[in-house]
Amino acid sequence: MPTLVLLRHGESIWNRENRFTGWTDVDLSSKGLDQARGAGQILRKHGFAFDVAYTSVLKRAIRSLWIVMDEMNLMWIPTQACWRLNERHYGRLQGLNKAETVAKFGEAHVKLWRRSYEVRPPEIAIGDDLRHDSRYRQLRPDELPFGESLKDTAFRLWPCWQHSIAPALRRLEKVLVVAHGNSLRALVKYLDGISDADIDDVEIPCGVPLIYKLNQDLDRIGSYYLNPAVMEEQTVA
Amino acid sequence: MPTLVLLRHGESIWNRENRFTGWTDVDLSSKGLDQARGAGQILRKHGFAFDVAYTSVLKRAIRSLWIVMDEMNLMWIPTQACWRLNERHYGRLQGLNKAETVAKFGEAHVKLWRRSYEVRPPEIAIGDDLRHDSRYRQLRPDELPFGESLKDTAFRLWPCWQHSIAPALRRLEKVLVVAHGNSLRALVKYLDGISDADIDDVEIPCGVPLIYKLNQDLDRIGSYYLNPAVMEEQTVA
Repeated sequence: MPTLVLLRHGESIWNRENRFTGWTDVDLSSKGLDQARGAGQILRKHGFAFDVAYTSVLKRAIRSLWIVMDEMNLMWIPTQACWRLNERHYGRLQGLNKAETVAKFGEAHVKLWRRSYEVRPPEIAIGDDLRHDSRYRQLRPDELPFGESLKDTAFRLWPCWQHSIAPALRRLEKVLVVAHGNSLRALVKYLDGISDADIDDVEIPCGVPLIYKLNQDLDRIGSYYLNPAVMEEQTVA
Repeated sequence: MPTLVLLRHGESIWNRENRFTGWTDVDLSSKGLDQARGAGQILRKHGFAFDVAYTSVLKRAIRSLWIVMDEMNLMWIPTQACWRLNERHYGRLQGLNKAETVAKFGEAHVKLWRRSYEVRPPEIAIGDDLRHDSRYRQLRPDELPFGESLKDTAFRLWPCWQHSIAPALRRLEKVLVVAHGNSLRALVKYLDGISDADIDDVEIPCGVPLIYKLNQDLDRIGSYYLNPAVMEEQTVA
């Protein structure tokens, strides 16, 4: 049976400061390093192994993946870093903390941007963009985001699922995906068949592996969290 | 022009103890961690960047690569870990230090095993082999080594050069290879056209990037070391 494990990176420095991070390449906090180690340890303890791993091109995800691979003695497995697994691009909110955002845009807007499936945050201007970052130079101009809704994130993530992750699962490989709060929410929305309205209640915790058992058509048979804090299985809330 | 950079991993714990390591998966020493950081720093200082990296499936090489990628802010580049870049398999010498080896087999034999191009060390018995290690499960039984000459190492490394590294260079990608004393000697022997007799004088230091400028046919135009200890270019001795 195909096995898919989703893992949100450990806490980043901006998570700790409650800032919108998006595509900003912020590193893990020391708590985040510990969370990644905990994730690797509980996966090893429960007998998991992986044939292949996918991650974003952002260092908080890549470093989390490296730590997990190291803890599991799987440093050698094939890995692929893909921009399509990046966090949702938060546009002009990136870098602002919650209080600053509310002061600047008002509570109602902020709630809408965080919670609605389709509404985009205010976009960054052309020129603030990512065209000069070599990790994005293969992208077409219209693929570079200026500020995404969760729906936009789900849309650009899809080819990575369809052409990389799903084919690996169909080959019965055991697949680890280390990514971000919103790119993983987009995947979970698809895998669990969650509606546009209900996805806002779904929150993926940092550093807690989420295990999916799938059938050969990649339909979900079941899923659960392996929580390092309690070192045991938890049903999904 | 294609650029190829070869890097031997930082000092491992067994390098420090002067033990034959081969395919034993020994980690870096603290000096080795520093050497890898130094290599990344000097490469960044000299304006290098890489499109792709190749390494072995042994953690002393992979960890060195990770440290270099981190120091260069290139954690996201595609990497491939291939068993063909592993260190020479030292057969029954693996785990023994120099004094133990001389005591057990005699000075003359040891010198021959270390220095000759074609002579194999005493082979490990079937059963001590690597068949149960998941990183080698894709290998045919006749590909698993029991003890290699440098010539054997060069032979099994060749497909990785021919099918992975050389095509990347022909696409004008900037390629980093982080590997081992003997797998890199085999590559250098080929690139520099060194004879079977003369290769024994070639020693690749740990953690010192070796830069190759190649023409479009991948013939060597020039090569030099970037020595982090002196932070400048050095001609190859």
